[in-house]
Amino acid sequence: MPQLRKDPVTGRWVIISTSRARRPSDFIRAPRFPLSDGPCPFCIGNEAETPPEVLSYRENGNGNGHWSLRVVPNKFPALRVEGILDRAGEGLYDQMTGIGAHEVIIESPDHKVSLADLPEKRVEDLFWAFRDRILDLKRDTRLQYVLLFKNHGEAAGASIEHTHSQLIALPVVPIQVREELEGGRRYHAFKERCVFCDMVRQESRDGARVILETDEILVIAPYAPRFPFETWVLPRAHHSHFETVEASLIQSLAWAMRSTIRKIEKVLEHPSYNFLIHTAPIQEGALDYYHWHLEIIPRMTRVAGFEWGAGFYINPTPPEEAAQFLRDAGL
Amino acid sequence: MPQLRKDPVTGRWVIISTSRARRPSDFIRAPRFPLSDGPCPFCIGNEAETPPEVLSYRENGNGNGHWSLRVVPNKFPALRVEGILDRAGEGLYDQMTGIGAHEVIIESPDHKVSLADLPEKRVEDLFWAFRDRILDLKRDTRLQYVLLFKNHGEAAGASIEHTHSQLIALPVVPIQVREELEGGRRYHAFKERCVFCDMVRQESRDGARVILETDEILVIAPYAPRFPFETWVLPRAHHSHFETVEASLIQSLAWAMRSTIRKIEKVLEHPSYNFLIHTAPIQEGALDYYHWHLEIIPRMTRVAGFEWGAGFYINPTPPEEAAQFLRDAGL
Repeated sequence: MPQLRKDPVTGRWVIISTSRARRPSDFIRAPRFPLSDGPCPFCIGNEAETPPEVLSYRENGNGNGHWSLRVVPNKFPALRVEGILDRAGEGLYDQMTGIGAHEVIIESPDHKVSLADLPEKRVEDLFWAFRDRILDLKRDTRLQYVLLFKNHGEAAGASIEHTHSQLIALPVVPIQVREELEGGRRYHAFKERCVFCDMVRQESRDGARVILETDEILVIAPYAPRFPFETWVLPRAHHSHFETVEASLIQSLAWAMRSTIRKIEKVLEHPSYNFLIHTAPIQEGALDYYHWHLEIIPRMTRVAGFEWGAGFYINPTPPEEAAQFLRDAGL
Repeated sequence: MPQLRKDPVTGRWVIISTSRARRPSDFIRAPRFPLSDGPCPFCIGNEAETPPEVLSYRENGNGNGHWSLRVVPNKFPALRVEGILDRAGEGLYDQMTGIGAHEVIIESPDHKVSLADLPEKRVEDLFWAFRDRILDLKRDTRLQYVLLFKNHGEAAGASIEHTHSQLIALPVVPIQVREELEGGRRYHAFKERCVFCDMVRQESRDGARVILETDEILVIAPYAPRFPFETWVLPRAHHSHFETVEASLIQSLAWAMRSTIRKIEKVLEHPSYNFLIHTAPIQEGALDYYHWHLEIIPRMTRVAGFEWGAGFYINPTPPEEAAQFLRDAGL
C-alpha cells in the first residue's frame, strides 16, 4: 500500500510508492525512453493491455464507432482508491495511507499524433474528460485535490510516447497549491479584488506579455516566469474551480491551447513540455480569491539543484521577449 | 543589469538575467556538456581566464606554493554587487535591481579529481571558504541571504566539469527558505523545541534511516524524502547559522560529507548530484527555531512537471531502504 508522509518542517506531503523502481540498480539500468512507431498498450486494438476504462468518448455520440479518448487507471498507480484513510504519527512525524486515484487520459487512438495535431474537437474532449473525472471523483469526500497535467517528451518526464495526460486525486492539498491559495487570499484581503482578475486586466491592457487572446481566454508570458517561455492560459471570467467550465469556454480554451502549443512547437522546435491545471480544492465552495488557470512549461533548461531547493529561479529570457517570439510565430 | 521580479500570487522572486541565452535558438542549439580532459579556465595556470579572485588558499599557510582552492566571481553573473538597490512597482507587480553576488568556489587546481577524491583537508577548506565568504558578504547589509550549493554532473545542471561549488548572495530570502523558517517557527511555538533537534534525537535513537554518524554529525535519509536516496547532513548541536561553525565541527562535517558522497558514488555508480546548505538569513541574529543543515540530492529520476508545479513528489524508494543501501556500502 502506498504511504503519504509529511515533512515535519515545511508540511510538504510526499508519496512513498514502491510499485516501481526502488533498488539502486533499478535507476542505474533504467531503460531510456522507448521511442517506437507503436503499437503500444494505448493504441487502438490493445485495450485489453490497460486496466478497465473508467470513461471513454466515441467518435459519434451514440456509442457506435471507435473510441477517440479513453481514461484508464494507471497500471502502476502512485495511489489507490481501495482501503481506509488512516492517519498516524511516528514520533514527531505524520503519515497516512495512500488513498487516492491515478489515471491516464489517452488523448487519441493513434500512436503517432501529438496533442497539437489533433482536431480542435478532440482537444475539447480532453478538457471535457478532465471535467467529467473531477465531477466523479469529488463525490469521494476523502479526496481533497485533483492534479491534472501532461508530461510531453522525455525531458518532461513522459515514459510513454503515445499522447496522454494524467490525473492524480489526493487526500491532501499539495503545498504549492496551498501557497497559491494563501497568496490569493492575502491579496484579496488587502485589495478586495482577485489577483488573477487584476492580472488579466493589466496584461490585456498592456499587451507586452500577451501571446494570444480571445473573448474568453488570455494567454501570457507571466511577469516573473521561472523558466524561459513559461506560458499561462487564463480564463477572463472569474471561477475558482476548473470543473465549472461551460461549453463556450471549453471551445475557447481548446482553440487557445492548441494554438499556443503549436506556436511553442514552431518557435522552440518541438520541445518537451509540461502543463498543469491550477484549480481550487474540490471539496471547497466557490472562492472569490482564487481563479483557475493552466501553466505550460517548455523544458528548455535543466533545473539545477539550488533552484528547486530554494524555490529561487534564474531565467535568461525576459517574458516580454518570449511573448514576442510566440506572438509573431503565427498560428 | 539583471532584474529581480516577484510573482504577485506566491511572492516567489525570480532573477531575469539576460547575460546568457535568451533567444529560442540559444536553447535549441545549446551545446552539450563539454566533456574534456582539460585544461579549462579553472585549471592551474589559467588563472587569467577567470575574473580576479576574491579568496584563495595556498598549499602552505605562508602564501607560498600553488593555490589549492580559489573563489572567483562568476564570468556570467546572475547578480552584481555594483549599483543601487532600487525597488519599484509596475502596476500590480513588484521588481528590484539585481544586486547581489554570484561566485564560483574552485575546489582543486586539478581538472580531473572529484570532490570525494580530494584529501579530507581540502574538503575542510571548502567549508572554510563557504564560511569566509559569508562573513565577508554579510557586511553588505543590502544582502539578506547566501545560497551555497554544488551542481555535480550534467543532470544536476553543471556546465563545467572541473570540480566547483557556487555561491549566490541575494537581497531577498528565497521562498522555500522562508517556508522552512516559518515551519520551524510554528513547531517551536507549539513544542518550545527545535524541530531539527527533535529529528536528530529521534533518528539517532531509531536508527532505521541513519546512514552514518559521528559525535557531532548525523547523516540520514529524511522521513519524507522528495527523491530516491535524498540525504540530509545534520549537525547535532543547535546553530541557526552555518557561519558559526568551529574547527572541530568543520573536521567532522568534511569527513561525513566526503564519506557520504563516496557511499552515494559507490551505490549509485557515480550519479549527478546537488547539495545545498540550508542556513538562516545572514542579517538575522541567532534563532532558536532554525538549525542549519545540508541536503544532498542524487539526480536519479527526472523531475516531472507536476512535481515542481504542485510541490508534490512521488518517490519510489522508501528512505529506510535507501539508508540501508548507503549504510551497508562501507566507506
